[in-house]
Amino acid sequence: MTGHTTTRFKKPRLGVAYYPEQWPRDRWRLDASRMAELGLTLVRMGEFAWSQMEPHPGQFDLEWLDEAVEIFATAGLKVILGTPTAAPPAWLIAQHPEILPLTEDGRRLRFGNRRHYCPNQPALREATARIVSTLANRYGRDTRVVCWQVDNEFGGRCYCETCRVAFTGWLRSRYGSLAALNEAWGTSFWSQTYSEWDQIQLPDRAPYAPNPGLALDYRRFVSDSYVGFQAYQISLIRQHAPTQSITHNMMGFRFGEIDYFSLAKDLDIAAWDNYPSLHLDSRWSSSGLEASVMRGLGRPVWVMEQQAGPVGWETVRTPESGQIRLWAYQSIAHGAEAVLFFRWRTARFGTEQHWHGLLNGDGSLGPWYAEVEQMSRELVQLGEDLEGARAVSEVAVLHDYDSRFALEIQPTNQSLDYRNSIQTHFGALRKLGLGVDVIAPSAALDNYRLVVAPNLYVIDRQLAEHLARYVADGGVLVLAPRSAIKDRSNAIPERPLPAYLDGLTGVRVVNYHSLHAHETAAIEGTDMPVVGGFLGWYEQLKVRDADVVARYVSGSFAGSAAITARQHGSGRVLYLAGTGDQETVDQVLRSVVHELGLRSRELPPDVELVPLVSRSGAPMSLILNHSDVAQEVHLPGGPWRNLMGKVSRVGSLDLAPYGVEVMLSESVLLPEEASR
Amino acid sequence: MTGHTTTRFKKPRLGVAYYPEQWPRDRWRLDASRMAELGLTLVRMGEFAWSQMEPHPGQFDLEWLDEAVEIFATAGLKVILGTPTAAPPAWLIAQHPEILPLTEDGRRLRFGNRRHYCPNQPALREATARIVSTLANRYGRDTRVVCWQVDNEFGGRCYCETCRVAFTGWLRSRYGSLAALNEAWGTSFWSQTYSEWDQIQLPDRAPYAPNPGLALDYRRFVSDSYVGFQAYQISLIRQHAPTQSITHNMMGFRFGEIDYFSLAKDLDIAAWDNYPSLHLDSRWSSSGLEASVMRGLGRPVWVMEQQAGPVGWETVRTPESGQIRLWAYQSIAHGAEAVLFFRWRTARFGTEQHWHGLLNGDGSLGPWYAEVEQMSRELVQLGEDLEGARAVSEVAVLHDYDSRFALEIQPTNQSLDYRNSIQTHFGALRKLGLGVDVIAPSAALDNYRLVVAPNLYVIDRQLAEHLARYVADGGVLVLAPRSAIKDRSNAIPERPLPAYLDGLTGVRVVNYHSLHAHETAAIEGTDMPVVGGFLGWYEQLKVRDADVVARYVSGSFAGSAAITARQHGSGRVLYLAGTGDQETVDQVLRSVVHELGLRSRELPPDVELVPLVSRSGAPMSLILNHSDVAQEVHLPGGPWRNLMGKVSRVGSLDLAPYGVEVMLSESVLLPEEASR
Amino acid sequence: MTGHTTTRFKKPRLGVAYYPEQWPRDRWRLDASRMAELGLTLVRMGEFAWSQMEPHPGQFDLEWLDEAVEIFATAGLKVILGTPTAAPPAWLIAQHPEILPLTEDGRRLRFGNRRHYCPNQPALREATARIVSTLANRYGRDTRVVCWQVDNEFGGRCYCETCRVAFTGWLRSRYGSLAALNEAWGTSFWSQTYSEWDQIQLPDRAPYAPNPGLALDYRRFVSDSYVGFQAYQISLIRQHAPTQSITHNMMGFRFGEIDYFSLAKDLDIAAWDNYPSLHLDSRWSSSGLEASVMRGLGRPVWVMEQQAGPVGWETVRTPESGQIRLWAYQSIAHGAEAVLFFRWRTARFGTEQHWHGLLNGDGSLGPWYAEVEQMSRELVQLGEDLEGARAVSEVAVLHDYDSRFALEIQPTNQSLDYRNSIQTHFGALRKLGLGVDVIAPSAALDNYRLVVAPNLYVIDRQLAEHLARYVADGGVLVLAPRSAIKDRSNAIPERPLPAYLDGLTGVRVVNYHSLHAHETAAIEGTDMPVVGGFLGWYEQLKVRDADVVARYVSGSFAGSAAITARQHGSGRVLYLAGTGDQETVDQVLRSVVHELGLRSRELPPDVELVPLVSRSGAPMSLILNHSDVAQEVHLPGGPWRNLMGKVSRVGSLDLAPYGVEVMLSESVLLPEEASR
Repeated sequence: MTGHTTTRFKKPRLGVAYYPEQWPRDRWRLDASRMAELGLTLVRMGEFAWSQMEPHPGQFDLEWLDEAVEIFATAGLKVILGTPTAAPPAWLIAQHPEILPLTEDGRRLRFGNRRHYCPNQPALREATARIVSTLANRYGRDTRVVCWQVDNEFGGRCYCETCRVAFTGWLRSRYGSLAALNEAWGTSFWSQTYSEWDQIQLPDRAPYAPNPGLALDYRRFVSDSYVGFQAYQISLIRQHAPTQSITHNMMGFRFGEIDYFSLAKDLDIAAWDNYPSLHLDSRWSSSGLEASVMRGLGRPVWVMEQQAGPVGWETVRTPESGQIRLWAYQSIAHGAEAVLFFRWRTARFGTEQHWHGLLNGDGSLGPWYAEVEQMSRELVQLGEDLEGARAVSEVAVLHDYDSRFALEIQPTNQSLDYRNSIQTHFGALRKLGLGVDVIAPSAALDNYRLVVAPNLYVIDRQLAEHLARYVADGGVLVLAPRSAIKDRSNAIPERPLPAYLDGLTGVRVVNYHSLHAHETAAIEGTDMPVVGGFLGWYEQLKVRDADVVARYVSGSFAGSAAITARQHGSGRVLYLAGTGDQETVDQVLRSVVHELGLRSRELPPDVELVPLVSRSGAPMSLILNHSDVAQEVHLPGGPWRNLMGKVSRVGSLDLAPYGVEVMLSESVLLPEEASR
Repeated sequence: MTGHTTTRFKKPRLGVAYYPEQWPRDRWRLDASRMAELGLTLVRMGEFAWSQMEPHPGQFDLEWLDEAVEIFATAGLKVILGTPTAAPPAWLIAQHPEILPLTEDGRRLRFGNRRHYCPNQPALREATARIVSTLANRYGRDTRVVCWQVDNEFGGRCYCETCRVAFTGWLRSRYGSLAALNEAWGTSFWSQTYSEWDQIQLPDRAPYAPNPGLALDYRRFVSDSYVGFQAYQISLIRQHAPTQSITHNMMGFRFGEIDYFSLAKDLDIAAWDNYPSLHLDSRWSSSGLEASVMRGLGRPVWVMEQQAGPVGWETVRTPESGQIRLWAYQSIAHGAEAVLFFRWRTARFGTEQHWHGLLNGDGSLGPWYAEVEQMSRELVQLGEDLEGARAVSEVAVLHDYDSRFALEIQPTNQSLDYRNSIQTHFGALRKLGLGVDVIAPSAALDNYRLVVAPNLYVIDRQLAEHLARYVADGGVLVLAPRSAIKDRSNAIPERPLPAYLDGLTGVRVVNYHSLHAHETAAIEGTDMPVVGGFLGWYEQLKVRDADVVARYVSGSFAGSAAITARQHGSGRVLYLAGTGDQETVDQVLRSVVHELGLRSRELPPDVELVPLVSRSGAPMSLILNHSDVAQEVHLPGGPWRNLMGKVSRVGSLDLAPYGVEVMLSESVLLPEEASR
Repeated sequence: MTGHTTTRFKKPRLGVAYYPEQWPRDRWRLDASRMAELGLTLVRMGEFAWSQMEPHPGQFDLEWLDEAVEIFATAGLKVILGTPTAAPPAWLIAQHPEILPLTEDGRRLRFGNRRHYCPNQPALREATARIVSTLANRYGRDTRVVCWQVDNEFGGRCYCETCRVAFTGWLRSRYGSLAALNEAWGTSFWSQTYSEWDQIQLPDRAPYAPNPGLALDYRRFVSDSYVGFQAYQISLIRQHAPTQSITHNMMGFRFGEIDYFSLAKDLDIAAWDNYPSLHLDSRWSSSGLEASVMRGLGRPVWVMEQQAGPVGWETVRTPESGQIRLWAYQSIAHGAEAVLFFRWRTARFGTEQHWHGLLNGDGSLGPWYAEVEQMSRELVQLGEDLEGARAVSEVAVLHDYDSRFALEIQPTNQSLDYRNSIQTHFGALRKLGLGVDVIAPSAALDNYRLVVAPNLYVIDRQLAEHLARYVADGGVLVLAPRSAIKDRSNAIPERPLPAYLDGLTGVRVVNYHSLHAHETAAIEGTDMPVVGGFLGWYEQLKVRDADVVARYVSGSFAGSAAITARQHGSGRVLYLAGTGDQETVDQVLRSVVHELGLRSRELPPDVELVPLVSRSGAPMSLILNHSDVAQEVHLPGGPWRNLMGKVSRVGSLDLAPYGVEVMLSESVLLPEEASR
């Protein structure tokens, strides 16, 4: 059995976020001992505590932090220390109001929440150097501290003058000359030719939609600004902390402002904050997608904030009983090496009073405490069983920030929404019980049997060749509409569409139709078992060298090709000419998967199955019931041992509402498995 | 028969708003004589006439006003004189543009509408002193003038630098020290600790939701700014006007920016502007709630602006034929001592051309003129009959601006909307024909048999003790979900919830569920005749010492307590664990009312009954048909005399569409009434 | 057969927009020869090319333009040259940032799109003088250039200080004295009296709706600012170009910010940009209305931009196959003398990458190219046949920018939407196959048998007299609700409503009712075959001297007059007291038309018929099938010859989906036609 993700599972560690500065000092010891009793081994602190660490410019007070570290270490917990830069203190803002970001509508933000900074401000850098170096110097070789978290949830665009100047510099590096920039952006359109670098403005206040090249480069610049600010902090930490891990807590797939592939490159651990209540929708595969995107960054994954109860600032979203444990197990199933619940105790004040921890604001145990207790007990043995296991992913979905940025700038049709599109295709694959990696288009693809690119809007010749090689070497590639429409400067290549991929696919897009949200064009398989429809956007193809596997049966292009397939070398490429609704995409990908002979599963609608291979090479499955009713799952190829300690009926498994089970095959490998 | 509202009714006076400056001088006399013919005795003028009174800085022209006062006085009308500060003239704004308010999004407003001032600006105060003193000096002892109206409909937040400085001063007074403020707001959260007062910013431009303590204090500060500006004007008037009444025209319950309890404290009369077309919805109880909130301010109530026809600035809302009279009677039924229609004649120009008066713009009689004529005739005798009557209110609903402000800052769930919540409970009680007072939580409660607190979100120990005493002494208290969640600084008390009330209620809130707008959790009475549902928000209770009177039959907490009741001393406290829809709240409160033996009525859906006691102690009822069809109302305990002059059938009353009748019992008191 | 539009058709010319600066120079010749092959004879260039024409301040590079003009002229095309002022170059903005407009919410726009200028800025005027004079000097007598297009799609409000000062000057001219302005605006309302001109502010930041007089004058001022900027450019061009035509490409009826009657007065040709995908809705009569509004400007009409494929900046709207040809024919049917497709080739970069031309971005032929090819072939003969023909318009709809501006300022009720209202009435008439002119209320009316004024909100005595004379002389006038409510300063006249028209109509509006979007008041004809309803707004009439032809059968005024008619002199005036839905207006106008004996047609729902008279005086019809199915049209009074070359069955015509046919009557004139 092959698969891309070769990282072996570690025994999952549990932890929690704790803010000593928010509670009386005499409470810390009690909290620490309770955490230890609960089986937690990691505690995160320090993020947001700048004004406690440096109450006045250059005057540090770290004695309280020393004490906290000592108390928790003594109780047996390792400390993750946050740099506090996500919340510059009031005195710094008073000294340097230019640190405050300028919004798209020209307002200078004020102190009073958090993330009130422009990442490019010199004054911020200077103050950051002082506080981060001080912390790194004090704790950089402290064995009680195992990891640094840089800042907190980077994000936010700024449109200030400093950013404008920095953007100009960024453009100089990218393009070398104004002539090259003018050419790439196509500034001959609407008299936008620049004769001086200083003429280039940020794209926030153009009368209407700005030049798409400018808009895309600005999005990249914002992303790079945070990558740069993180790199700056890492260099400060590394001077004093040669061996501790460094991470940042990202925001999963739901957040699309920063290219996390770039951000993760500089990190030892790809940490993220997992609040299923905030994901795209309530589908379990949405949470799974978030986790898979993070795993696809190519670093060990930690969940730095795992939802522990109701969440929300102004309004509240609540989980059901059982979901907090279920969701934490989902994180583990998707490879998290550590899961830290957010947070230990609900804040009594501040913006996050409704963001619930394991303890209530008054210190009593919250309704989900027992779920974590149960989970911690379970993991004593289960953790050992999971150690050394590997994910099985024969399928990859391509995720590309350039395409995401460009589509947000020009959505073209509401159905082409980037998040939805990736979600629909990922969800279709995951319903079949297949392991799915979500990776960058430029990543190595040779370990995958199937690669799905639901919205590869931006292309270049190199990438096209990379994809063609993958197919030629035996891979199966599925492309969806609006593939390969833009070059890296957000212009349309002077090429038949899909640009650089017309040869590979054997089709040309010669026309398209843009529908309103409720309209569809029906399609029907000619050489594929699909009866479905495209919703919102569908294209007319000129088929030059491909098989038509489905045709339109309604709409403007009735009778012509809706899905094509083409053999190329040892592989095959499919082109979907329209935005399939979930049911249609389900049928198409099921058909592709069956034809490929990938081992899919028929699962009840709300049941998630994550396929692993145990360290001894035996099939293993984490099975999660995301519904509020009991479910029965068919288990082929038994006997299976239930690692949660329960006995399973032969051939099937009973799942409680929101239940989790972990099954290990005790059979010899099936022939088709052994053969891989 | 007991009841809180001991103020005796006065013979209602009718009046109208008139703007002499908007009409040719030779028209005034005609208008005055028509008003007199119509039976009006009050005329309001002067508000908004600053630029006519003081055409240039310090140059006054009041001769026209003298003439107007004289003309209307001669015709037999008493004058209410407005201070014109709601509309500072163009020359003042040109001299002092800093008077213009700064909006939440950082725009400096401009001259061109009204209310274009920051109430804290020194230049405004100075100009105010000049014009108000001049007016007070001239008319302060003028017997033709009976009342002063300060400004017009205070409201509007400002975020200017002057406000920031004033807010800092306000905070100094409230907290004494920065340490106390840091503690109260919980600034240890997100590094928000202030080391200098000047670091505190207004909450308008934080990147996201600001610190809830800051947000709540700013809302109080805005409210206090208007209270202060009003007090300033009152002190200026009082220097010259020792005996005339002083009032301000408030905006009822629909407006929630100013704590009207505070504002009314400094006034002789609580005036308000009553536009039923603008109320929460078209329910008659919504208008009744507005009126009751005003009556609950503890001052004699005048309706300074009573809707006289279609209203609206940019779009128009129109009443039905009959409603103008009906609504005016509703004002009287709820205790208004004077009702001034707005306005005499529709403006031909300016923003309010669509805000209709009794006369059309061309001076002809408008379609509702005859209704006022009829009413005026009726009141000749009816007014005498009403004089000395008293409202009967054995029930109170608690209305609290701190809770309102805090819930607007963090709505938690759409179902917890403050206005809706109060409306739902008030409406349920009024449908039963009960007199209902709407009062501050801190008010004396001992005269009420039942107190309903639909959304007492903010609590402190003193208030909790006040409520407990009320119950111990025999009162019945009904609490709804999200009671007692916040302290006065908008932080969560370090207490089991409902904070400080867990002992009294005998329950603890241990979990909750936040639903979308269309979802419900069904409930069913175990010891109460209720079959209904909670919509949006519902809580899980740990019942420690209370009776479960209703249980959940669906949702996350199915089977557990949905409504509890607990005997405490001589009284009883009920806790509703979720946001009941109107039907559910109707059932619950009907049951409570029946059990208490309050004399409720079964009324047709759109019929309002206001219970009074005549000056001789006999039961009296104002009955208003808010529907467009004739209705029949059952009248128990007759014989009744119809004070509108019509004969009533024994035991029942026929109401015309939009009809009004006033019934006086001629029977001896019923035993159960006499016993109270 | 009479009719207003006496302009005779010319043989339609076809053309295209081309941007040489966006393509390699070695491509131009190929494009030119292809255009010539396609039968195009006009090419537009130069607009938006400022930075290519004047790369640095005062340094001109027009050699490329010379070459382009030469290449296209050699290929046989005539050039339309645009002044490039719609896109001031980056260097100009860098030098004079004050050119950038200030938005309503106080943001200074930035460079990066187009139309980033305030039309009143001196620096813009100065730079405009330089570039326009240079162009005019070079090409003003060049016979290869036949026409100048000034700027591109004027529009956009500015609120800068320069505009404020200019507005003050504009007001001085209009009112002469502050006293007159104070009187006209009614500044006695809310103390808005101005004592200095400088106190007058633009209406962008009043706390709420500003003074309606101020708001309306500002709208006029914005319109006049563009009229002025255009006049400035025209004067610059005329100094060097004594004979070439001058035009501007307007935006049809959908754009309501500029009084196109004023703008067109200074032009030789009324050009406009016709994108049916962007019109009010997909009704064919919506496109027809746009075209008719343009024809009503009283100048020869050119379509400077005719939709050539999918359009949109951020999202895309697509036509169906056949519609590009159909829509171009619709332009011709409504009198366009030239139709230039926009654009030749889809831009590969810039904001309009999704705005498709006849060629794809890669230079290949787009899906609609063949339709233009077909049309060009057809026009060889058909153009000759059309030459000298005349439109037949016995009906006029009145279109008035004052009313449009004033209703946008105070919409009163959603049903009174100006565009919808005109569309509904125009559509009802066009469905009957009648020729309809859309003209200014002040235009000569004597050639029309019927004049419909769906929303003549603003009135003055002169206009009322003009309308009365029309009726007295035998015309039929149809007025709809909210007619004659405002004077020219947006105040309500001191007159019974409809002001100045109460005598003519014989009715007075004494009350009205404003409904929500889904509510209706049913009406029924008493002397007219109508059973329908008013939606949103309906009025109560006092009928003084008129016949009631329809009554309300529900709603607040049930039983009273809903539609009245009055004989006046030789004519008749109808008053509709409410906003009819489409079906009701259809019935009413059908009845009026039948009674008048106008020759209407029964047409299938999606078939448009444009009635013409050939140059020899024979009836001629352009018939367009706007549906995607074949249709059969009954043709009375044959025999007819099909000028598209097909043979027609006697008495009926088969239309293909999206088909177009042109029919010429070969019968002698019908008696009733000959008699006119």
